[in-house]
Amino acid sequence: MAGLNGGGTSIIVRLEIHKELVTFGKIATAIGDAGGDIVAVDVTRASKTTTTRDITVSVSDPAHTETITKVLKKLPGVRVINVSDQTFLMHLGGKIEVTPKVPIKNRDDLSRVYTPGVARVCMAIHEDPAKAHSLTIKRNTVAVVSDGTAVLGLGNIGPVAAMPVMEGKAMLFKQMAGVDAFPICLDTQDTEEIIRTVKAIAPAFGGINLEDISSPRCFEIEERLINELDIPVFHDDQHGTAVVILAGLLNAVKLVGKPLESCKVVITGIGAAGIACTKMLLSAGVTNVIGVDRQGAIVRSETYTNAAWEWYAANTNPNDERGTLSDVIAGADIFIGLSGPGVLKQDDVKRMASDPIVFAMANPTPEITPEEAEPYVRVMATGRSDYPNQINNVLCFPGIFRGVLDCRASKITQEMKLAAAKAIASVVSEDELNEYYIIPSVFNHEVVEKVREAVMEAAYESGVARRRSQRETQDAHHHE
Amino acid sequence: MAGLNGGGTSIIVRLEIHKELVTFGKIATAIGDAGGDIVAVDVTRASKTTTTRDITVSVSDPAHTETITKVLKKLPGVRVINVSDQTFLMHLGGKIEVTPKVPIKNRDDLSRVYTPGVARVCMAIHEDPAKAHSLTIKRNTVAVVSDGTAVLGLGNIGPVAAMPVMEGKAMLFKQMAGVDAFPICLDTQDTEEIIRTVKAIAPAFGGINLEDISSPRCFEIEERLINELDIPVFHDDQHGTAVVILAGLLNAVKLVGKPLESCKVVITGIGAAGIACTKMLLSAGVTNVIGVDRQGAIVRSETYTNAAWEWYAANTNPNDERGTLSDVIAGADIFIGLSGPGVLKQDDVKRMASDPIVFAMANPTPEITPEEAEPYVRVMATGRSDYPNQINNVLCFPGIFRGVLDCRASKITQEMKLAAAKAIASVVSEDELNEYYIIPSVFNHEVVEKVREAVMEAAYESGVARRRSQRETQDAHHHE
Repeated sequence: MAGLNGGGTSIIVRLEIHKELVTFGKIATAIGDAGGDIVAVDVTRASKTTTTRDITVSVSDPAHTETITKVLKKLPGVRVINVSDQTFLMHLGGKIEVTPKVPIKNRDDLSRVYTPGVARVCMAIHEDPAKAHSLTIKRNTVAVVSDGTAVLGLGNIGPVAAMPVMEGKAMLFKQMAGVDAFPICLDTQDTEEIIRTVKAIAPAFGGINLEDISSPRCFEIEERLINELDIPVFHDDQHGTAVVILAGLLNAVKLVGKPLESCKVVITGIGAAGIACTKMLLSAGVTNVIGVDRQGAIVRSETYTNAAWEWYAANTNPNDERGTLSDVIAGADIFIGLSGPGVLKQDDVKRMASDPIVFAMANPTPEITPEEAEPYVRVMATGRSDYPNQINNVLCFPGIFRGVLDCRASKITQEMKLAAAKAIASVVSEDELNEYYIIPSVFNHEVVEKVREAVMEAAYESGVARRRSQRETQDAHHHE
Repeated sequence: MAGLNGGGTSIIVRLEIHKELVTFGKIATAIGDAGGDIVAVDVTRASKTTTTRDITVSVSDPAHTETITKVLKKLPGVRVINVSDQTFLMHLGGKIEVTPKVPIKNRDDLSRVYTPGVARVCMAIHEDPAKAHSLTIKRNTVAVVSDGTAVLGLGNIGPVAAMPVMEGKAMLFKQMAGVDAFPICLDTQDTEEIIRTVKAIAPAFGGINLEDISSPRCFEIEERLINELDIPVFHDDQHGTAVVILAGLLNAVKLVGKPLESCKVVITGIGAAGIACTKMLLSAGVTNVIGVDRQGAIVRSETYTNAAWEWYAANTNPNDERGTLSDVIAGADIFIGLSGPGVLKQDDVKRMASDPIVFAMANPTPEITPEEAEPYVRVMATGRSDYPNQINNVLCFPGIFRGVLDCRASKITQEMKLAAAKAIASVVSEDELNEYYIIPSVFNHEVVEKVREAVMEAAYESGVARRRSQRETQDAHHHE
């Protein structure tokens, strides 16, 4: 997957060099011959006979790193102590930290933020627990919860190995939206145990972002937590994906001049994301959605053992279209792939309706590559950053949680997700909109604020916003 | 308790002032007459007829705040919108935040700290879970876990109300020792549920600091977690208190010229802290410790329903001394109060051995006040910041966790706690040592480093340190 990065990366090679046996020139030449570009050299230790140097080398990909390492290992007088790359270096010691908002400069400060002064704040919350939303980190803090069962495309790698993803997500929460997020990686994969644990740790948090939990467990975990907690619970892999896909589709159909409601949509991969995406489309007014999984289109007349598919069969595919993807794709306006590499063929695209819209989200290799689809497709989007129109959850979760925290929402309703999708789409203006720009960049600063506002407005309309006015959180302590 | 603060604090009074009915001069005079000192005035809103002003007033205590508020409410033309004090203002929105260590400046950074680059880091940890100690926040992060059952002296106020204390503790962890700490306040008071929850969330953390959990549940929770987790678990209310008391005693006995081992020690309050303190003293070589609770001295011949007291009876009071505190205090060299206000009388102190040492830790009102004890006592310590010799856990927990994180200790052994106590005591040099300076200030910068070093050394000796060398954590990624 690292090659997807597109560009090169840097590695740091630590070498022990025997001065009498080899010159630095020889080493530099060897690295250069292997295609490496020396960026920096630091001496870290020196003795009479040896020097230890850290050599920073720009490389194209991990295989390239291996090549350079092998070349260096063969050089007489050179001992390769260690090879680090920038990605690993950026992870050393973790990527986030927990910092005080104000320094404790003296005994007076200490007596306010800790004993004895803190006791009055504790008692104020004890008397009115809603005050926790203004007097504790609950005001601005989200738990990023995973059990490590479905991490990226890596599968069930467990909670400890999932940490770097959750830490990265916490970085994005803070940088994009000022939300404090803390990774909670659970050493259990039992549904009931996960529900119990998240409920037990909820007091500190104003929201729960579920992440990388495998299907179908993720459905029950999310549903139960939504019902049993009074703070919003949001499984990003389901709803974040669905929101951003809908945002892209809203702009794509605008471009091709079709009303979304009348489009025929075919979705491959009816797992967590596929089902959430379908529900989102139904909420947006689409009626003809056909789900296709490995055994073909999901149809009403069939019986499914999976409860989610039972729901799916009953609520989609109104014309009862049957068969494989190639069968049901005929006349489709929109294809959404949430399945695997190469699932959609050129011939399938050719049989879609005019101006076909293809969202091929499988990562790293899409259902059809943009190169293959190009001649036949009108609008194409993927999950990749190295093609135009990247559908990236980073466009959704920071703004949606910023919004729910700011209005103290107790839930994230379907209306709020719809509002978020429309807000994301709205960032691309009419005159900017074109086939290669249907969705804003993840670094577009307008996105968070627009999503926040739309989500808050929808939260007030849905009746789930618990904050009454601006003043309520600004005021610290009311006497009488 | 707030009065204990000793000094004054500031409040901010927001007033709506009807210009035609009252002048600012009148308001200022009224505040001055009530003993308030105006520090600052800000206009926050103005209309034709009214002005809204935030007036910062220095006051002596909360009662004083009430007086000033009442006076202002009686003034015609003045509406008191809100009264905030500095302590509450410092808590607005919580006291800690979660921040990225490096900014995500561009797509390249994003691809390293998040997908796709992060996948390689995840897989490296998946292949060797010990790498989590260097490549995730586990390296430097502690959970501050409470169920809110015994918060400060406030009792069972619940998890949400306990948050301000845990946040304050997290601030101290970071500021004093660079340790990232995150508050986990549990919405359950069930022993098994607490154990299960802490085990479930452990992957992200390098240590667990238990806090303000009531006795006797705290014993089983701590013991089980120590045995069932591979990271250190430390109930600060027990062991932090015991370590700092021992640190103070080591210097106190030096001053009076008695070997600690031969001292007769009487302890009142045989709860969690009292028992931990007793174990600490026994580890330090003291043999004659007598525990006294409400029904008198704990003695071998008695049967106790409480398992902790059964242990206590079997391991202390070798001379089987019986009776009340007044009975067993006779000839005692050291008194340690972990009980309640006024438990120790002047007459009791008079009957102690020569050069009596009295540690009266009850908060806010000690077992005997320094004023009462002064004529008869040689060395006196309390838990309060407004008397000399404050026994404060802040002297222990930052350094002890700094040490265990830095050597990746799996446990905190009794030897490590002893080493921490000796290290704290050693900060007070021979020529500084006197009756009013037996323990360093909480702001003394030497403490953390000394405790860290001592704890690490003891951890290596105890065989619980898992980090082999400096290089091991510095190196990011080893190829072959």
